Amino acid sequence: MKFDKDTKILIVGLGLIGGSYAEALTDKGYYVGAITRRESSIEYALKKGIIKSGSTEVKKEYVGQFDLIVFALYPHIFIEWIDKYQDYIKDGALLTDVTGVKCGVVDKVQSLLRDGIEFIGAHPMAGREVYGVENSNKDIFNGANYIVTPTEKNTPEAISACRELGEILGFAKVSVLSPKKHDEMIGFLSQLTHCIAVSLMTCKPSEHLVDYTGDSFRDLTRIAKINDEMWSELFMLNRDELLSQMDLFISNFTVLRNALEKGDTDKMKEMMRLSTKNRKFFDKK
Amino acid sequence: MKFDKDTKILIVGLGLIGGSYAEALTDKGYYVGAITRRESSIEYALKKGIIKSGSTEVKKEYVGQFDLIVFALYPHIFIEWIDKYQDYIKDGALLTDVTGVKCGVVDKVQSLLRDGIEFIGAHPMAGREVYGVENSNKDIFNGANYIVTPTEKNTPEAISACRELGEILGFAKVSVLSPKKHDEMIGFLSQLTHCIAVSLMTCKPSEHLVDYTGDSFRDLTRIAKINDEMWSELFMLNRDELLSQMDLFISNFTVLRNALEKGDTDKMKEMMRLSTKNRKFFDKK
Repeated sequence: MKFDKDTKILIVGLGLIGGSYAEALTDKGYYVGAITRRESSIEYALKKGIIKSGSTEVKKEYVGQFDLIVFALYPHIFIEWIDKYQDYIKDGALLTDVTGVKCGVVDKVQSLLRDGIEFIGAHPMAGREVYGVENSNKDIFNGANYIVTPTEKNTPEAISACRELGEILGFAKVSVLSPKKHDEMIGFLSQLTHCIAVSLMTCKPSEHLVDYTGDSFRDLTRIAKINDEMWSELFMLNRDELLSQMDLFISNFTVLRNALEKGDTDKMKEMMRLSTKNRKFFDKK
Repeated sequence: MKFDKDTKILIVGLGLIGGSYAEALTDKGYYVGAITRRESSIEYALKKGIIKSGSTEVKKEYVGQFDLIVFALYPHIFIEWIDKYQDYIKDGALLTDVTGVKCGVVDKVQSLLRDGIEFIGAHPMAGREVYGVENSNKDIFNGANYIVTPTEKNTPEAISACRELGEILGFAKVSVLSPKKHDEMIGFLSQLTHCIAVSLMTCKPSEHLVDYTGDSFRDLTRIAKINDEMWSELFMLNRDELLSQMDLFISNFTVLRNALEKGDTDKMKEMMRLSTKNRKFFDKK
C-alpha cells in the first residue's frame, strides 16, 4: 500500500485513540470509516464529521473497500477479530494497530494472517485519563512519539507507509524499533511508571491527603486513574520484561533508601545530581 | 503580633520562595524588606519593586524595625542565624519559616529562642524546578496548600497571624498540623515522591529514552531535577519518618509485582480500581 489522496482508511475500535486517529486523518482529507461496538459512538463521530461512514457490524462489503485498517482494540479482541474476519479484507491492504505491547501481539497476528495482506505494528505514545470517541482530539499527537515495530515479515513499503502514517497524524518524532526493544522501552518508560503510580496511590486512605499535597504527588499519580481491564492485559502480555524493569527500579530505590538509613549524604547527593542531569534530556525544546 | 497595614515584614533568604513571598506581600500593600547573601538578588528585587529595602548584611538597626520575619533559608543556616542574631529582633516580633521539614527545625528554634519573640513554623507547599529571586512569582501560591505547624509553646495570636499570612499570600487552603503529623504527611506526599523520581531517573542511561517516552514518564520525573544540597538536608532531618514511608511504598509496590509474577490479574485489577478511586480525591475542582 502506498499513501495517496484516495487511500481509504478504516478505524476498528472508535475510542479515545481510534477517534483521535479518525479526526486527524479526516482533517488531512482522507476518507475515514469506522467499525465499533457502540452505535452512539458511530452517531457521534458522523455528527462531528470525524468519519464519513461507520458500522457496528463487521460486514465483508464494508471492510473490503479499505486500503489501510487501524486496529484500536484490546489486544485479545484484536487477535480474535483477525482470526474471524481477515477474509473480509481486500488483497493488498495494510493493517496496523495502536497496541501498547508488541511481542505478544505482532507475532500472533503475523502468524495468523493469510497471504495478500500485511500487518505492521505501531505504538502511538499518546493517551489521556479519559475514554471514548467523545473525548477524542487530533491534537493529542502533537509533540508525542510514534514507534513503528516491524519484523522480518514486513516489507520496506509497509514500514515506509506506517512511518508516513505517524507523520500524517502529526507526531513530533517517528522511530523504528524491534518489537522486543519496544517492549523493553515501554516496560520501563510506560508500564513501570503506571505500576509506581498505582502502588503510590494505594498506600494510604486518601480522602484527606489532598489538603496537604503539593504538585509533586499530583504529577506522580495522574496516571493512577487507570483502565484496569486494559492495563492488566497489557501488563500480562509483557510480564517478563515488566518484572525486570520493576526489579531494576526496586533495586535502585533501595540504594537510595539504604544511603538515607546510613546517613550517606554523599551517595544521596550523587544520585540527585545524576537524576538532575538525566532529566535534562527530557526538557521539551 | 497582629496584622495591619503598618506591619513591616522582613524576608531572610531571597530565593524562589522568599522572593515570591516578597512579591505577594508587596502586592498586597505591605512594607517588605529583605536580607540575603547575594547583592544581585537585592538589586534585582529593588529594581522590580518586589521589596522596599534590602541588605546583604545582618544589622541590628535594620532587623530591629520588622514586626514579622519570614526565614526562607536552608534549615542549618536558619538555626545558625537565630543563634547568632536573635538579639537584633525587636520584642513582640513574630518569626515564621518555609522549611519543608518541621520537627527538627521547630523544636530546635523554639528551644533556642529568647523570651519576647515567638517562632511558629509554616510550610508553603509550592515549589518549582527553578531557583532564585529572578524566578519568583506570587502566583505560585494560587491553588496550593499552606500548613501551619504550632506547638504547645505557641500563642493563639501567633497561630492566627500565621494562618492570616497564608491567606494573604493567596494559598487555596490553609491547614494546621502538629510538626510530627506534618512530617509524616510530607514524608509521604513530598519526600517519598522525590525519592521515587530520583530513583526512576537514575535507573538507565537516558540520552535516547526521550524518543520513546510518553507523558507519564515525563510527569513522574519532573521533580527529579532536584537541589541536592537542600533535599539531602531535608531528607536527613526527617530520616526515620521518610524511611517508614519508603518501606511502606516498597511493600505495596512488591504486592503489585508479585501479583504480576503469579498472573493474579484479579489482585492487579483490584489495586488499579482502588488507585483510580483514590486519585479522584485529587481532581482539582
